[in-house]
Amino acid sequence: MIDLVKKYLIELQQSICSEVELIEGGAKFAQDSWTRDDKRGSGLTNILSNGNIFEKGGINYSIITGDKMPKSATALRPELEGRKYTALGVSLVLHPENPFIPTAHANVRFFIAEEQGKNPIWWFGGGFDLTPCYGFEEDAVHWHQTAKKACMPFGEDVYPKYKKWCDDYFYLGHRDEQRGIGGLFFDDFNSGSFDECFDFMKSVGNHFSEAYLPIIRKRMGTPYNESEKDFQLYRRGRYVEFNLIHDRGTLFGLQSGGRTESILMSLPPTVKWSYQFKTKPNSEEEKLTSYFLKPRDWVSLK
Amino acid sequence: MIDLVKKYLIELQQSICSEVELIEGGAKFAQDSWTRDDKRGSGLTNILSNGNIFEKGGINYSIITGDKMPKSATALRPELEGRKYTALGVSLVLHPENPFIPTAHANVRFFIAEEQGKNPIWWFGGGFDLTPCYGFEEDAVHWHQTAKKACMPFGEDVYPKYKKWCDDYFYLGHRDEQRGIGGLFFDDFNSGSFDECFDFMKSVGNHFSEAYLPIIRKRMGTPYNESEKDFQLYRRGRYVEFNLIHDRGTLFGLQSGGRTESILMSLPPTVKWSYQFKTKPNSEEEKLTSYFLKPRDWVSLK
Repeated sequence: MIDLVKKYLIELQQSICSEVELIEGGAKFAQDSWTRDDKRGSGLTNILSNGNIFEKGGINYSIITGDKMPKSATALRPELEGRKYTALGVSLVLHPENPFIPTAHANVRFFIAEEQGKNPIWWFGGGFDLTPCYGFEEDAVHWHQTAKKACMPFGEDVYPKYKKWCDDYFYLGHRDEQRGIGGLFFDDFNSGSFDECFDFMKSVGNHFSEAYLPIIRKRMGTPYNESEKDFQLYRRGRYVEFNLIHDRGTLFGLQSGGRTESILMSLPPTVKWSYQFKTKPNSEEEKLTSYFLKPRDWVSLK
Repeated sequence: MIDLVKKYLIELQQSICSEVELIEGGAKFAQDSWTRDDKRGSGLTNILSNGNIFEKGGINYSIITGDKMPKSATALRPELEGRKYTALGVSLVLHPENPFIPTAHANVRFFIAEEQGKNPIWWFGGGFDLTPCYGFEEDAVHWHQTAKKACMPFGEDVYPKYKKWCDDYFYLGHRDEQRGIGGLFFDDFNSGSFDECFDFMKSVGNHFSEAYLPIIRKRMGTPYNESEKDFQLYRRGRYVEFNLIHDRGTLFGLQSGGRTESILMSLPPTVKWSYQFKTKPNSEEEKLTSYFLKPRDWVSLK
């Protein structure tokens, strides 16, 4: 099982990197292959810095093993306590230079927790979600339509379920704000055979580019001024707050002795915090939080 | 008890603000007085932005009450569970423009947890700690000497105990780095009478300016270039990581429904994250992590 998933993940990483480089038209990912000192983890971190389109982008493949599931993973699933595990996944975050292009995040992962004399417990997780600074309805509709398309072969109820989970997950309680306009989020997914579950994960992984690339192409030519850039830097603060305070994936990684630099590649390149930043009434900046960052049934809008 | 502490805290806030404004020579704190909608908290947040010396500084007084101690406070002290509480304190963070001036943090606070028919449980907490980007031994020695001076009237063992607690507390596990060069940190402090404990808290609060102001004056004229500024922005990332991942005070504030903007005023104004930032061997930048950010007996260095 691990080998099959690994093969797919490495191909997925490669294919998304190629597509991003194509749209960049020059800038290339730097590849950093690493192995943990204790040999319990390795990975390939691909980083793009100061590109034409992306100020910073990271597309990371990693596989880690451990003797004992970490706390953040067993809190809700005590049956996993004490099991050794292998976790592998591809995780990507792309922070555009242009504030009119949204930041994208995607992740697909496979877990297997084993204990001698017992059946292994395995599951898939993943999803993708979009974080605009300036919202566009048509982009949100396209993003969610593509998310729905990825889910449809697996049942009518799949998209609504994982769309809602995404909204629930990417929520900043201390701000009472969504991180972005959502997408898909699933975890602990093991209903049906391994092949069926794996197919679903692949469908999510394979639809990421179709969801994101058209939005980049549509927005990359939009001119922006300093105050719009500033708004982006300010909004990136929320991204940092979510990832460091709330994100289970980040906490799992740091707790399990993951590779800090690869985990925190998700953080934006430049960020600003200012006390009580205020948006003008009825501005595009205000519309972001008052309209776009509320859970919404985007696919029905079209 | 609450009234006595409140009076002191408001005076302390005022006095530190005046001293900072004096050194700023122009820029003033903006005062933002706030009350929570549910009336269970109020405060005065003083913010200085884009000053001559400080890119951002916040000196916050707040008092909050609650029906039930939040999780982060009762994890280690189950006897507090279910009690109503009042917490008040002054908290400050000063982020200088010049990378040769260290960032300073100080906090003094008083908690009282009450339950009908039982004796109230009260305690003090606080401390101050320093986070340089470029280290100077003489500054570290002065800072710790002043910390020791604040503690000496209360016993020989007080400074070493709270100096160590500070080193233990301001530690980023995922980076295996101290946040800074430390100082003092104490919590759950209630040994002796209320007056004695209160005197200790006041001594810590009153020594902050004596510890910090001479360092500002010594470093504020040092010229710096873009790469030194960049190093500061990069190091500020660690500050954010600590505050959002590890800091119990921040988590307590956010969990107890505190005022997010006042709590997160501690975050630096501008921050950069870059993948695997590398310092040159034997540079001042490398010396920061290899020498200064290790727990060290600074007072014995002089």
